[in-house]
Amino acid sequence: MAAPAFLPELATQVVVPVAAVVGIAFAVLQWVLVSKVKLSPDPRRGDGSSPKSGAGASEYLIEEEEGLNEHNVVVKCAEIQNAISEGATSFLFTEYKYVGLFMGIFAVLIFLFLGSVEGFSTKSQPCHYSKGKTCKPALANALFSTIAFVLGAVTSLVSGFLGMKIATYANARTTLEARKGVGKAFITAFRSGSVMGFLLAASGLFVLYIAINLFGIYYGDDWEGLYEAITGYGLGGSSMALFGRVGGGIYTKAADVGADLVGKVERNIPEDDPRNPAVIADNVGDNVGDIAGMGSDLFGSYAESSCAALVVASISSFGINHEFTPMLYPLLVSSVGIIACLITTLFATDFFEIKAVDEIEPALKKQLIISTAVMTVGIALVSWLGLPYTFTIFNFGAQKTVYNWQLFLCVAVGLWAGLVIGFVTEYYTSNAYSPVQDVADSCRTGAATNVIFGLALGYKSVIIPIFAIAFSIFLSFSLAAMYGVAVAALGMLSTIATGLAIDAYGPISDNAGGIAEMAGMSHRIRERTDALDAAGNTTAAIGKGFAIGSAALVSLALFGAFVSRAEISTVDVLTPKVFIGLIVGAMLPYWFSAMTMKSVGSAALKMVEEVRRQFNTIPGLMEGTTKPDYATCVKISTDASIKEMIPPGALVMLTPLIVGILFGVETLSGVLAGALVSGVQIAISASNTGGAWDNAKKYIEAGASEHARTLGPKGSDPHKAAVIGDTIGDPLKDTSGPSLNILIKLMAVESLVFAPFFATHGGILFKWL
Amino acid sequence: MAAPAFLPELATQVVVPVAAVVGIAFAVLQWVLVSKVKLSPDPRRGDGSSPKSGAGASEYLIEEEEGLNEHNVVVKCAEIQNAISEGATSFLFTEYKYVGLFMGIFAVLIFLFLGSVEGFSTKSQPCHYSKGKTCKPALANALFSTIAFVLGAVTSLVSGFLGMKIATYANARTTLEARKGVGKAFITAFRSGSVMGFLLAASGLFVLYIAINLFGIYYGDDWEGLYEAITGYGLGGSSMALFGRVGGGIYTKAADVGADLVGKVERNIPEDDPRNPAVIADNVGDNVGDIAGMGSDLFGSYAESSCAALVVASISSFGINHEFTPMLYPLLVSSVGIIACLITTLFATDFFEIKAVDEIEPALKKQLIISTAVMTVGIALVSWLGLPYTFTIFNFGAQKTVYNWQLFLCVAVGLWAGLVIGFVTEYYTSNAYSPVQDVADSCRTGAATNVIFGLALGYKSVIIPIFAIAFSIFLSFSLAAMYGVAVAALGMLSTIATGLAIDAYGPISDNAGGIAEMAGMSHRIRERTDALDAAGNTTAAIGKGFAIGSAALVSLALFGAFVSRAEISTVDVLTPKVFIGLIVGAMLPYWFSAMTMKSVGSAALKMVEEVRRQFNTIPGLMEGTTKPDYATCVKISTDASIKEMIPPGALVMLTPLIVGILFGVETLSGVLAGALVSGVQIAISASNTGGAWDNAKKYIEAGASEHARTLGPKGSDPHKAAVIGDTIGDPLKDTSGPSLNILIKLMAVESLVFAPFFATHGGILFKWL
Repeated sequence: MAAPAFLPELATQVVVPVAAVVGIAFAVLQWVLVSKVKLSPDPRRGDGSSPKSGAGASEYLIEEEEGLNEHNVVVKCAEIQNAISEGATSFLFTEYKYVGLFMGIFAVLIFLFLGSVEGFSTKSQPCHYSKGKTCKPALANALFSTIAFVLGAVTSLVSGFLGMKIATYANARTTLEARKGVGKAFITAFRSGSVMGFLLAASGLFVLYIAINLFGIYYGDDWEGLYEAITGYGLGGSSMALFGRVGGGIYTKAADVGADLVGKVERNIPEDDPRNPAVIADNVGDNVGDIAGMGSDLFGSYAESSCAALVVASISSFGINHEFTPMLYPLLVSSVGIIACLITTLFATDFFEIKAVDEIEPALKKQLIISTAVMTVGIALVSWLGLPYTFTIFNFGAQKTVYNWQLFLCVAVGLWAGLVIGFVTEYYTSNAYSPVQDVADSCRTGAATNVIFGLALGYKSVIIPIFAIAFSIFLSFSLAAMYGVAVAALGMLSTIATGLAIDAYGPISDNAGGIAEMAGMSHRIRERTDALDAAGNTTAAIGKGFAIGSAALVSLALFGAFVSRAEISTVDVLTPKVFIGLIVGAMLPYWFSAMTMKSVGSAALKMVEEVRRQFNTIPGLMEGTTKPDYATCVKISTDASIKEMIPPGALVMLTPLIVGILFGVETLSGVLAGALVSGVQIAISASNTGGAWDNAKKYIEAGASEHARTLGPKGSDPHKAAVIGDTIGDPLKDTSGPSLNILIKLMAVESLVFAPFFATHGGILFKWL
Repeated sequence: MAAPAFLPELATQVVVPVAAVVGIAFAVLQWVLVSKVKLSPDPRRGDGSSPKSGAGASEYLIEEEEGLNEHNVVVKCAEIQNAISEGATSFLFTEYKYVGLFMGIFAVLIFLFLGSVEGFSTKSQPCHYSKGKTCKPALANALFSTIAFVLGAVTSLVSGFLGMKIATYANARTTLEARKGVGKAFITAFRSGSVMGFLLAASGLFVLYIAINLFGIYYGDDWEGLYEAITGYGLGGSSMALFGRVGGGIYTKAADVGADLVGKVERNIPEDDPRNPAVIADNVGDNVGDIAGMGSDLFGSYAESSCAALVVASISSFGINHEFTPMLYPLLVSSVGIIACLITTLFATDFFEIKAVDEIEPALKKQLIISTAVMTVGIALVSWLGLPYTFTIFNFGAQKTVYNWQLFLCVAVGLWAGLVIGFVTEYYTSNAYSPVQDVADSCRTGAATNVIFGLALGYKSVIIPIFAIAFSIFLSFSLAAMYGVAVAALGMLSTIATGLAIDAYGPISDNAGGIAEMAGMSHRIRERTDALDAAGNTTAAIGKGFAIGSAALVSLALFGAFVSRAEISTVDVLTPKVFIGLIVGAMLPYWFSAMTMKSVGSAALKMVEEVRRQFNTIPGLMEGTTKPDYATCVKISTDASIKEMIPPGALVMLTPLIVGILFGVETLSGVLAGALVSGVQIAISASNTGGAWDNAKKYIEAGASEHARTLGPKGSDPHKAAVIGDTIGDPLKDTSGPSLNILIKLMAVESLVFAPFFATHGGILFKWL
């Protein structure tokens, strides 16, 4: 037998929960720091009766807010923040009510289907992989899978909800800090993003760790069953993410498109103008879609890649020989990731200070590079300490010998491929480079050429990321089979805390700008929040690139685990069963996108009608003397998105079940592979096309170069063409693109969870024929 | 041994060439009938000095052309036709010059690569499949493959060229006939389309038949080598088609977009207005893109599916036992197809007469239904007479027993799946149904919602065609392995003569309308040609559906033949080599589309500049007192498209070579499968999105319903939004969508031709590692 890992079991039992607790503590600390910015008027300046705020900052305000009543501004900001927060909370509660019902039904299905594998027998059974040993009954796996599913769903829900809460807590504070300078505002927004990032990464790890230990009390020696049941955690997280992304995505884009089409295009009023009835709904949308939805999404990827790695490890030498530390290698990687991200965060908030607008984007990009570099060292360390020098990995029926440095390479290639994808995404979506500038230039000849160039840009932007993904897959797959792919995915996600902080930073800044506009703050404040937001836009695109890349790796790993568990050893394209799965699977992302885009379109049309109605019937609205009815718009977005998220959600959730039951595991394998290779491309191109249009518009609006000024100013024909592109891009980049990530992951993890059922009872159609 | 087929060898040797000759004769007959419409003024009416024309028709003209000078109109039509024909000829000659050079180089490559398989040895070698027998040397296969390649390319070139010639010969004649009534015009346009359809189908069959017989003189008993060499014919046809489709597609859309953006959008002059300098280039584009390009495309599919079926048959019992009639079953199916289409054509031109505008579309659709029904009987007959009751088919290393009725089912399922795809395409692209009407309705809220709804429509329209394709593949694959898929493709293409006639009808009508406008003919004439054209638009979309569906089947069959020839027996997705091929293959259609769309965009921008320049610098142009410089615009389109077709063409032609040589046949298999399953979806959605936008615009313009009138008239805001959608759709539906067909087919056939080389010398990168 090979030499064991350096790290003893006890150390692992300490390192993982401690890293998780440190992560949570760090998140709380960041929150405390954000909360120091008071959202109540300073009694020394205005006439408010609120308690004393921490002093020392207000000395800058004098020059910034000349002529503006400090008290009124603060009160107004607090009011707006309150409206946004209430709208978001009310939407999420409504969403959770419906999704909760659905999840309940699905949990029952999981229990019934998996329980029926051995006819609900309570007798122990011979193990699948550990020959000669006895494992727990299928009924136990059914029960624990169901529990893990519920745990995953609840963790995802709580993460998304808290993320939204901190974001709506931070937006007005960012606005107020913008009066003191761009550096202060940046730190507030970034810290708030970090709260979410660390909370999510750490609590995901913590719950998973606890679940493994608690389930272990029952399972004892049966690691096969234990980690099979744990996969339910990934399914739960991902199912929640599906509805969060789709529902939130429809919400935010219906409000955004609706607000823009009437406000900007028809009424010619600026973005975020308080006279626009849909403006609050639009800001709510940022929080429920781009924060809560995205948080759930990345949490899902993270949970799934951990589960995929664990389930393969459990049937490899780690699992069969009961080597605890290497078995928990995926969790060790995540633990180190939290610490690496913690160090990285200090570079943004403490070691350096942002002084000018043009330092923001480099600071955010530095975060990515620093976290990747620090994490590379971390992976090396954990691979050296946590793994034996050599071990075997399950490889579709055979066992493959792997060295610890090879596993290091697998994690590292995922990590660095993520960075490559991120920077390519930036190149294609930032208006600092020629691709977006070319798209902006094409607006000269109108909206049609803008759309043609934008679509072409999106298609082109797929090339390098796909090569990067293919390279990571080839290397990790060749070195350590599906386990290698799973840990590569985990590598890409290991800096998730930093990634989420950067991602959440964007919508928070966006909201801050909206609040500044609505509160009637000075032009200079808006300029600062716009600069924060522009940087956020680019980094949001980078975040999407990461999310898509990791989704591709995760779903391949899950797919591999599914195939292993379904007891087939090849997926041969040259069999009719597999090929039809492949071509139909490649079609599913189109079907799904058609549904989500149509949903956004329909919801937006309802919003447009309501906004028009208010402008037409409420006297004094355009003049600013009467307030619009924000609440009705919020309700329209809420109702429409809840209603519209059901068909696409059902498509994703039901496809694996229907295909598995009727056509069996070979066809389902084809469907998973087809959806994966086709969905990744659409997701990348849709996100980048949308991002490019958005920034092409911003490029013209900002007019920062000679070339940009020939296209502007706001309201010029090229600018109008750019606004059309931006509006088209909204559902592409914020609804259909990101939701496709979840489609490919969710179908794979669902197949994996139901694999024992499909393997025994699936394919009834072919049995009948 | 099983009972032989009823049809003796001699009968087959008669039936195939006779059917081909009948087809060619029928094409000539149709041409003679079209040529009866004289393009010179009637001496009894005008003052021209031209010879006497066939009388009898002119009695209707009095009421139709009151107030217009008969002589001038005819002369003007002849002039315009001449300009279009010259432009098209000049473009095609330029294109052929460059493509010819490329083809020459490629022919040398084929010879060198295939010759090197056995080191240019002139010694005979043991056969691959007929164990114990001796086959011709690889050098002979290299030589004959090269000859077949050249033959295929030349046949494709001649077919495309003659198609363009007859189309430009017919367009002005259709315009003149429109003065006599819509029925006369319809027959002229449809007959001209038939000339092309029958010429192409029959000459394709004839050349293939002759080549098999001539090559057979050398090959003798070595059918394996003979049919392997014959696959070069498919590659030649398809390579020509690639450049025809891409070059023609860029040409036509650059001219179209350029003409529209300045003429319609900026200058507010109607479509086809003679004052627009790009108007001739636009009409030339229809002929080089939609006629010559499409003709080459369908010829390619047809040649490829025949070759795929022949090569699989040659290593099945037909080939091994030297059963001539069943061996030529694919050619018998095509022969029967020509006769079935001939009967079908008579229903449109002789048995019934079109009297009103609303009879046109049903008449065209009836063509599809009749040809499918007649052909079903034909397939039954040929399967009964031409095949033994039972035989074996090569199935990746094994032999599979098949019955003749099973092969009938394979061909029939392809045929009927084509019809289903056609009608689904019609449903999504005709403005008689709700999908397009919804898209038109979304123009109320502007171009952005129009684009969102149009993209969603395209995505949705993929669903049923993919299920139809998957069903055909499953059935034919299960019944008769790759041979079944190949003959299913052939079934879908068996009514190609009718399909091409219908397809070519569209651009001819479109041109006829343009000529009427340019010749200043009365509004009523233009209304008639518009009605002809509207029907043509829908059927063009149907034709594209067929082309895509058959491309999917063809490339799967070619892929299967490649895998057989490359001596691998499985293509397992769960190996890293294959999976990276799959995901990179699925990316290629995006890369290719990015190139073609960008090309159209760049070429259109050049055209816009030239058209603007002419409007700004030529005095009296807008007033109609000076003629624009049409020739410069023709030259810009020609130069731009020649230059721009090279990168996408190179991508498609070089990918299989690079992947095969560097990564080997497993990765190449993955690339082929990935490109196939991803490319089909984009091709369908791009074509249908574009078609829907086109017809949504026409729906608003025609204002035929209460709903349509609320969106119009021309120039209203919703109409402007619809025009933007239409312009975006142009490159999607006429360049990138149809070119993707060829991408997937060509890569597969190229891999097949080079398979012996890759199998022996490929994969050098992995050998080094």
